[in-house]
Amino acid sequence: MFDVTRYATAAQSIVDAGRFLYDRGWSPATSSNYSARIDHDHVAITVSGRHKGQLTAGDVMVVDLNGQAVQSDCKSSAETLLHTVLYQIFPEVGAVLHTHSVKATVLSRLTEGSRLDVEGYELQKAFSGVETHEGILSIPVFDNTQDIPALAEQSREWFQAHPDQPGYLIRGHGLYTWGKTMADCLRHVEAFEFLFECELETMRVRP
Amino acid sequence: MFDVTRYATAAQSIVDAGRFLYDRGWSPATSSNYSARIDHDHVAITVSGRHKGQLTAGDVMVVDLNGQAVQSDCKSSAETLLHTVLYQIFPEVGAVLHTHSVKATVLSRLTEGSRLDVEGYELQKAFSGVETHEGILSIPVFDNTQDIPALAEQSREWFQAHPDQPGYLIRGHGLYTWGKTMADCLRHVEAFEFLFECELETMRVRP
Amino acid sequence: MFDVTRYATAAQSIVDAGRFLYDRGWSPATSSNYSARIDHDHVAITVSGRHKGQLTAGDVMVVDLNGQAVQSDCKSSAETLLHTVLYQIFPEVGAVLHTHSVKATVLSRLTEGSRLDVEGYELQKAFSGVETHEGILSIPVFDNTQDIPALAEQSREWFQAHPDQPGYLIRGHGLYTWGKTMADCLRHVEAFEFLFECELETMRVRP
Amino acid sequence: MFDVTRYATAAQSIVDAGRFLYDRGWSPATSSNYSARIDHDHVAITVSGRHKGQLTAGDVMVVDLNGQAVQSDCKSSAETLLHTVLYQIFPEVGAVLHTHSVKATVLSRLTEGSRLDVEGYELQKAFSGVETHEGILSIPVFDNTQDIPALAEQSREWFQAHPDQPGYLIRGHGLYTWGKTMADCLRHVEAFEFLFECELETMRVRP
Repeated sequence: MFDVTRYATAAQSIVDAGRFLYDRGWSPATSSNYSARIDHDHVAITVSGRHKGQLTAGDVMVVDLNGQAVQSDCKSSAETLLHTVLYQIFPEVGAVLHTHSVKATVLSRLTEGSRLDVEGYELQKAFSGVETHEGILSIPVFDNTQDIPALAEQSREWFQAHPDQPGYLIRGHGLYTWGKTMADCLRHVEAFEFLFECELETMRVRP
Repeated sequence: MFDVTRYATAAQSIVDAGRFLYDRGWSPATSSNYSARIDHDHVAITVSGRHKGQLTAGDVMVVDLNGQAVQSDCKSSAETLLHTVLYQIFPEVGAVLHTHSVKATVLSRLTEGSRLDVEGYELQKAFSGVETHEGILSIPVFDNTQDIPALAEQSREWFQAHPDQPGYLIRGHGLYTWGKTMADCLRHVEAFEFLFECELETMRVRP
Repeated sequence: MFDVTRYATAAQSIVDAGRFLYDRGWSPATSSNYSARIDHDHVAITVSGRHKGQLTAGDVMVVDLNGQAVQSDCKSSAETLLHTVLYQIFPEVGAVLHTHSVKATVLSRLTEGSRLDVEGYELQKAFSGVETHEGILSIPVFDNTQDIPALAEQSREWFQAHPDQPGYLIRGHGLYTWGKTMADCLRHVEAFEFLFECELETMRVRP
Repeated sequence: MFDVTRYATAAQSIVDAGRFLYDRGWSPATSSNYSARIDHDHVAITVSGRHKGQLTAGDVMVVDLNGQAVQSDCKSSAETLLHTVLYQIFPEVGAVLHTHSVKATVLSRLTEGSRLDVEGYELQKAFSGVETHEGILSIPVFDNTQDIPALAEQSREWFQAHPDQPGYLIRGHGLYTWGKTMADCLRHVEAFEFLFECELETMRVRP
């Protein structure tokens, strides 16, 4: 059982995030899914297939950390396990956002190999624990698949080994990122999108 | 005769769609035209030449499936037959949107031959019946013409043979797409525009 | 003497146009100037150097067709003569808009020679009298200068010889366009900006 | 001691600037910092790490011209000295804005050497004292560093020698600009961003 007020607060943070992310063009055409932790065992998450700029309380449901619906007949996102695996391995994570921007999609397709390295941007400091622009931010790029349990395990293995890096790309698909609070998580989305746009803008001039 | 309440509802969905599509920049300078089905024999459609971001009830009229005005002295869009042919061949279609974005215009001009193929995008799943990113979405590109009856017949032939593909481009002109409801149709516009932008963004880096 | 109600209506159309054009990013940093005809001899025009997204009634004044202030101590735009020459040669013109978009600026600098030709766009039909996409729209590109009387004469000569074409570019500077009403003129701005963006987008892919 | 009403006015100008700059995408992910002069010895400045689109009075504090907090336990931006040095050397400066746009970031990285020259843009006249498009605007580009006192001295030396040029870039980091009033300063941000976008747009077509 979960605390209802905590659920309602988590759900509202998802609704608000959806309006912001849709307005930026990062969650078009009912794509994307968002979640926020209620407690150690429960997560609020978007119902599958809803318009992310028009979310209401009825578009959010509860799942446990195995991705099973709790007190609900709704169907959560097909990618629910990609959320819950992050809550399992990072007890401090409070929110996970998956977005589908043009920049993330294109850059992930243009990136050969399994990671995208960026360096020398002051904005890298937007990520918790980063104090200088001089390091390399290494973003894993997983190949897209409809086999979500396999991708969940792939992400589990990677992030247990690399716990400091709060995000990854799925090729031709989008970005996953997380944070202690929804505000942290939204800051990470903005920072990643900024970096993706910078990289693409640079590639346009120097292909 | 048609039901007046169904007409008013269809007209309102057109007015709302116009505000959205104009704000996105996809219907500039009084271009574009939109329609929504009232019943088996009647369609609400925009009056010719109106500002699509400032539509009111007075900017929508009724035509039959031959494109003839019903209970109206207004002139419907010059491209009315491109709408009605779709309602004729697809009884389940409830809305048709024609938009004029920069991306659709430029990509259709850059595409040689009569179709644009896109593949490997998760967002292809935004189209009804598509379950994976692995297929190819093949979008017909018709040459532009001011002979609308001829283009209507060309689209009739194509979509009777390819009923699953809900959209086409006219070269240097814009996009036609449709859906069971206006919400489905708007999702298709967003999905097509996303894919067009991804393709163009990729071509900028890898011409 | 001019009719005060006609002045107030013209001034309001300028204020509203400014909000729209600034929000689009086409009149940044106090650039641009706008005018609307009051009667055969008088024009309402923006005062020099005002923020175009924050215009109020106090930011609009009256000039005669020689560009002289009427009933005002304010200073009109340095480019006032570029407006008044158009009202002189075209009695039916009701509004003139000068904008400074990035696209117009860049495209005018990239265009060698004294005109930019565009063709094959359905949106060319947004200009009054154009019935097909098949013609060529030939937009003059004048070199920039701070000698406004000379540029006014250059534009007079050109448009007396080519009265059908409602717009021109100044290299590295911006667009002038006009129409019978402010709504027509705004439609022309949108159509030109659309075409400029299409041309630049194409040049990015096929330099 | 400083006048409280002058402080409140300065703080409000910062809050309003933040909303504008964040909405433009020029201050993402809690980046950027803004200041406004209170009097000869005091400056209102943003508290470190706040969301620039959601600033309230509690996100602004006071520092003296050595960057020390006055009547506050908050921590000002790590880059406070880059602001105060400008108030020291220019007694007429009333506001300083530091922004982090994609364009400024990318262009500063693509610029080899220590300055970016732009010329031939009418919009150069948006800078106080510039009367023609014919001059060269020469924008210094300093290398990024986390040693802010050193960068403050570097900027002091440069601008004591070149007092007419109201702005500079830090490579991979962003723009600093200033003006007599917050309105002047915002005009400068818009003008610089316009010029950066024009330069990048040109480089895309002619790399």
